[in-house]
Amino acid sequence: MRIVILGGGGMVGQKLAGKLAREGVLAGEKISELVLHDIFPPDTPQAGFAVTALTGDISEQSEAERVVALKPDVVFHLASIVSGEAERDFDKGWNINTRGMWHLLEALRAIGGGYRPKLVFSSSIAVFGAPFPEAIPDDFFTTPLTSYGAQKAINELLIGDYSRKGFIDGLSIRLPTVCVRPGKANMAASSFFSGIIREPLNGKEAILPVPDTVRHWHASPRATAGFLTHAAGLDTSVLGERRALTMPGLSCTVAEQIEALREIAGEDAVKLIRREPDAEIMAIVRNWPERFDAARAIGLGFRAETDFRDIIRIYIEEDLGGRHAFLAPAGAADRERS
Amino acid sequence: MRIVILGGGGMVGQKLAGKLAREGVLAGEKISELVLHDIFPPDTPQAGFAVTALTGDISEQSEAERVVALKPDVVFHLASIVSGEAERDFDKGWNINTRGMWHLLEALRAIGGGYRPKLVFSSSIAVFGAPFPEAIPDDFFTTPLTSYGAQKAINELLIGDYSRKGFIDGLSIRLPTVCVRPGKANMAASSFFSGIIREPLNGKEAILPVPDTVRHWHASPRATAGFLTHAAGLDTSVLGERRALTMPGLSCTVAEQIEALREIAGEDAVKLIRREPDAEIMAIVRNWPERFDAARAIGLGFRAETDFRDIIRIYIEEDLGGRHAFLAPAGAADRERS
Repeated sequence: MRIVILGGGGMVGQKLAGKLAREGVLAGEKISELVLHDIFPPDTPQAGFAVTALTGDISEQSEAERVVALKPDVVFHLASIVSGEAERDFDKGWNINTRGMWHLLEALRAIGGGYRPKLVFSSSIAVFGAPFPEAIPDDFFTTPLTSYGAQKAINELLIGDYSRKGFIDGLSIRLPTVCVRPGKANMAASSFFSGIIREPLNGKEAILPVPDTVRHWHASPRATAGFLTHAAGLDTSVLGERRALTMPGLSCTVAEQIEALREIAGEDAVKLIRREPDAEIMAIVRNWPERFDAARAIGLGFRAETDFRDIIRIYIEEDLGGRHAFLAPAGAADRERS
Repeated sequence: MRIVILGGGGMVGQKLAGKLAREGVLAGEKISELVLHDIFPPDTPQAGFAVTALTGDISEQSEAERVVALKPDVVFHLASIVSGEAERDFDKGWNINTRGMWHLLEALRAIGGGYRPKLVFSSSIAVFGAPFPEAIPDDFFTTPLTSYGAQKAINELLIGDYSRKGFIDGLSIRLPTVCVRPGKANMAASSFFSGIIREPLNGKEAILPVPDTVRHWHASPRATAGFLTHAAGLDTSVLGERRALTMPGLSCTVAEQIEALREIAGEDAVKLIRREPDAEIMAIVRNWPERFDAARAIGLGFRAETDFRDIIRIYIEEDLGGRHAFLAPAGAADRERS
């Protein structure tokens, strides 16, 4: 089983690579090789199989051909210009997000000879646009309100047709906002949903650009990596020609996120959240989905968190080594002894 | 008011050109120039304004730039590889239908300086795929089951984003199957819906490749030209960012089509329909929509026929000069005297 992760240097790509390295199998098969591809040299995890890093620009057709020459059994396509940046730089967003996908599909198709790799694409709930019903059903239409969302929706359609024609065996999974993202804030308009948890737990101030009443749809990086490996193992014949799946997630308000932070890290952590309304971010977030009825994906075995405190605990466990800035000294001592 | 029709040589393009020539105005403004563009030299109607023919291949970026250099106020984009052909020739379909649209949008965007033309795109009910609810609502998702449908759905998304960004003022209208198409059968899988009416009225045998129980969604060429001019005059601010509109139509079965033919032209006309089941056509048509709840378009003033006999009468009137092969001699004589 040879695997390529496009966007392998990104946060989700790294979480997925780590999971594959730990587990050694995908879709019930032993992994022989993992290639992490990104625009910058990606970190490679220690694993019981070969892990290599490739660097290049997938908006160029020749780069897609170079990657595809490896004839991977599974391609995870996670490479993307994020929502805020795609909105500011129209050409960059379309070049990387959609022309890049199309180049990849053409390169995969060109191999021929019965080659039909699995392609798992990280789509997004940004394919949907307000106004919404209270819970968005699986057959709701894709009316994106950002270039990023339009690019993801178009990629879903391309994957559907290339799959229907038998050139690939693809599926698109629409990820919730991934929270808590470790590391630095990125240019996604959704970045603050992680920031208001991550920064306080690291003893830093966080900016909250929207009202506490904003409701949104979340899943942890761990659940997200799980969506991707589950998708790679899915028998797509059960999907028919409807190869885009809205992933399950947790619907909660910013106020509920903050309350969960208070329960886990206390009032001093919450005090580090500074309210600084930002009209530009609010204008984007206002049109985002709040809640889905992801019945189809749940029926197919995809699972997400059901309590925001679990999402915070996963961040502390996976990315902070079990510690945070407001951990009671006794607890810290307990952990050190264990 | 300078107008370009891409696909101006096609059946719908010619009907639209004829309507514009007769009426002399579009969206309340006097027409100064009409350019008909197609891959072959299109016929040009007599009109009270300049009508010119342009020939070229819109799958080439340079051709889009040549057309756009005319700085039209309104562009009707009707050029398309039809469903059957796009299914057989994957590259041709994607090149003309989607790359062609993208080239056009890029060429329009490149002009700049506040130029923001109206773009009316003839999309299709092929953007939808079975299984369907009994009447398909305006917010039903686009899950095409043909390359043609995927190409149209992607164009809708491109038009949405280029409009949202202010590069154009676009809208997509999803046409019913246009019936009765004059002239020869084309390579669309839907061609027989017209053939079973048109051929008998011309005294010729028609092939019916599907069962009489097949239900479908129709509008006449006259109604279709009306959709296009109404769309060009529509204040798109009422659409918000939902710039794809399912047009109204008439839902009827093949049996009902045949019964209408019997009422208008008699049993001898009906006898010219020969049943010759075709598995390939049935496989495509099986997944097509049967009925829509086109509430949004109706609310915006779009109108179609409500009786299939009217659709037949329009064909006889517009394309057969009021005659057909089974017209009673008395009627023919009356007409000749008038």
